[in-house]
Amino acid sequence: MTMKTPLVLVNFKTYTEATGKKAYALAESCEKVSKEIAVAPQLSDIRYIAENVEIPVLAQHVDAITPGSHTGFVLPEALKDAGVVGSLINHSEHRLRLDIVEELIQKLSTLGLESVVCSNNITTTAAIAALRPNFVAIEPPELIGSGVSISDAQPEIIEGAVRAVKDVGAKVPVLCGAGVTKGADVKKAIELGAEGVLVASGVVKAKDPEKVLKELASYALVP
Amino acid sequence: MTMKTPLVLVNFKTYTEATGKKAYALAESCEKVSKEIAVAPQLSDIRYIAENVEIPVLAQHVDAITPGSHTGFVLPEALKDAGVVGSLINHSEHRLRLDIVEELIQKLSTLGLESVVCSNNITTTAAIAALRPNFVAIEPPELIGSGVSISDAQPEIIEGAVRAVKDVGAKVPVLCGAGVTKGADVKKAIELGAEGVLVASGVVKAKDPEKVLKELASYALVP
Amino acid sequence: MTMKTPLVLVNFKTYTEATGKKAYALAESCEKVSKEIAVAPQLSDIRYIAENVEIPVLAQHVDAITPGSHTGFVLPEALKDAGVVGSLINHSEHRLRLDIVEELIQKLSTLGLESVVCSNNITTTAAIAALRPNFVAIEPPELIGSGVSISDAQPEIIEGAVRAVKDVGAKVPVLCGAGVTKGADVKKAIELGAEGVLVASGVVKAKDPEKVLKELASYALVP
Amino acid sequence: MTMKTPLVLVNFKTYTEATGKKAYALAESCEKVSKEIAVAPQLSDIRYIAENVEIPVLAQHVDAITPGSHTGFVLPEALKDAGVVGSLINHSEHRLRLDIVEELIQKLSTLGLESVVCSNNITTTAAIAALRPNFVAIEPPELIGSGVSISDAQPEIIEGAVRAVKDVGAKVPVLCGAGVTKGADVKKAIELGAEGVLVASGVVKAKDPEKVLKELASYALVP
Repeated sequence: MTMKTPLVLVNFKTYTEATGKKAYALAESCEKVSKEIAVAPQLSDIRYIAENVEIPVLAQHVDAITPGSHTGFVLPEALKDAGVVGSLINHSEHRLRLDIVEELIQKLSTLGLESVVCSNNITTTAAIAALRPNFVAIEPPELIGSGVSISDAQPEIIEGAVRAVKDVGAKVPVLCGAGVTKGADVKKAIELGAEGVLVASGVVKAKDPEKVLKELASYALVP
Repeated sequence: MTMKTPLVLVNFKTYTEATGKKAYALAESCEKVSKEIAVAPQLSDIRYIAENVEIPVLAQHVDAITPGSHTGFVLPEALKDAGVVGSLINHSEHRLRLDIVEELIQKLSTLGLESVVCSNNITTTAAIAALRPNFVAIEPPELIGSGVSISDAQPEIIEGAVRAVKDVGAKVPVLCGAGVTKGADVKKAIELGAEGVLVASGVVKAKDPEKVLKELASYALVP
Repeated sequence: MTMKTPLVLVNFKTYTEATGKKAYALAESCEKVSKEIAVAPQLSDIRYIAENVEIPVLAQHVDAITPGSHTGFVLPEALKDAGVVGSLINHSEHRLRLDIVEELIQKLSTLGLESVVCSNNITTTAAIAALRPNFVAIEPPELIGSGVSISDAQPEIIEGAVRAVKDVGAKVPVLCGAGVTKGADVKKAIELGAEGVLVASGVVKAKDPEKVLKELASYALVP
Repeated sequence: MTMKTPLVLVNFKTYTEATGKKAYALAESCEKVSKEIAVAPQLSDIRYIAENVEIPVLAQHVDAITPGSHTGFVLPEALKDAGVVGSLINHSEHRLRLDIVEELIQKLSTLGLESVVCSNNITTTAAIAALRPNFVAIEPPELIGSGVSISDAQPEIIEGAVRAVKDVGAKVPVLCGAGVTKGADVKKAIELGAEGVLVASGVVKAKDPEKVLKELASYALVP
């Protein structure tokens, strides 16, 4: 199971609508729409979803620890065992230390897991690209959950991020997120150079998530 | 599923020997010895163990968040959905802010979950008891993983903790841990006023965990 | 220089009106009104104020470190050298781990410095009292900077905190804060059992801080 | 007062030998050797040293806050008022979040202050260079305080860091540190492309700091 671009990645966050049985149902909806939609459920739901749904599953967070005495932290090896293909790192709601981000990218890579590292602006996107993750995902914090799409509100940020990655000599695909709810948001993001989108409330809190997923996927996933 | 005292609580930490399939096997060993042994596996293993093994399962950590936008944090409601009876809080390897410890005790209680709050010395045990958790578990950090038992090295700390809890007018059962590996450690702890023990490496890294569990349980669990 | 009760403690926070030269001017205003008003300026202003103004000076924060390799942290011994009488600990805007709060109270005590530990509700006030600081200061976070006084909005919290401290068998004087701006707030707080108040914006951002200080002091400081 | 390269920057950390009056004496020793030696004393000593010693003074840490309600944090504007020329950021003993490092570089720049951002390896050096600080200072954590110099133990890291900065298209001078105690360490570092060194215990804990400073300066500071 790998992640293909253009990518649609659904972050379940800790929404009630995406916890436990509902997380499983949402993952099934994703699979129904396309086996290429990736999902990031909560840790306690990861193993069950990874075992029962044929789509790429990511963790929302992982800690830079090795096996041993680290009560309550998230072991990369445990994620691997649970069946994920990778992990979000440094999400806007869970920022990490610079040295830890770098360490995590290495650790995941060693385990054959992919890193999707989030950034908040063009400059930090460049810095993250210099760390060579598998993906960098730019999400302006002020637009997250706003209902206003990054593609509409700040298209120049997507273009700028793509250029900044090139400027540091990296070949890291750029994803973008924040406020993504419509197919047109995805279309525009891809035209601006992004290779996929992160969505959360736009799908999770939709009346009909499957309908939204279909629309997003129709623009992202070439048949 | 509830926790009965005297309690034996096995913290799986992030040991390789207690991750994924091995976590499940270890939980089965516990169940075989006694259905009253409680276990605290990693988050990604919790649901599977809770569904398949008839023993009390706790989380190793939980975050003071409500459902919503909290990527990568541990939602109390998600733990409940996964089948835990409660959670460790403020473990030596995962200390928390004072106000967060209090908030977590309340949140878990509201959800019908039990809180096992760890402390590092007699004074902090008293403070935690004042927050009225379901259990307070004293573990002198310098003895954790040392192979030297708290019962042997610092019996006065167990007695002191039990007295300190009374002195603040609380009726919170005191557990103790750090270096516990033998039945005699449990016996002595209970004689000193503790109502159970926390064990980790002493069981998880034992050549024959089941044998160790049997010995511990023989002193803790009255038939 | 020691702190006498009833106490008026002015937290300078990081307000522009209380930074650098303005911090010094404000400390002078306090001294003019009463040499018993305590102030908590920023770290970079502490030494100068302590050397030039005859009032008790506290730090706003201190770290649980010993002399050595701790770049960028606040050494208790350095505070002592700079002339403070003590430090705020665990302020609403700077919460700390439970074990660290305890460690800090001990460290300061060993150095002959006083600890003023902040709490957010009645339960955490009890827990902090069990740690035996020199003062516990309850400040409901939702009222801080609100302009609505704790004495008016939640008098039961002041009474409850005073009672809770007794209930854990401690003799720790209770201060209160949040929204304190008027002499009547101080008067009522003292009637309810508090032994002083914490003020910040009510003084720092006042058009005429000296006038406000005079009013507050007239109720708190018995001649 | 600005920082010239090749630079010798003395980090006082929280050593007893560099606290309070002793910090002042050490700063005077630096000034005596060369007015171009930069020092990073503790916050409570910064203003006094900046006012009385004619050498560039840096803070050891600064927080990404604006004036207001941030009790116990380090306001960039307060540092400026205290007379610093800049601040260390992200020191090995005080690592920061990636987004915070970027925010701090911007904030300091806006205030006319210089940023010296620390890194732990070649890859993070590249990432930090992409954030365009005034300096990036590589210090392999395992060598800090070891007495073994980075110039001796890992010369390839200095060269690699210098190259990595160029590879991301940045013109950020590279400093290096960890274990630096001798003039030869400085000489070699500069030959390898570094534009200065960070020293701490090598100077602070020396029997005769002035002698060490003279030796270091003789290699770094061209007359």
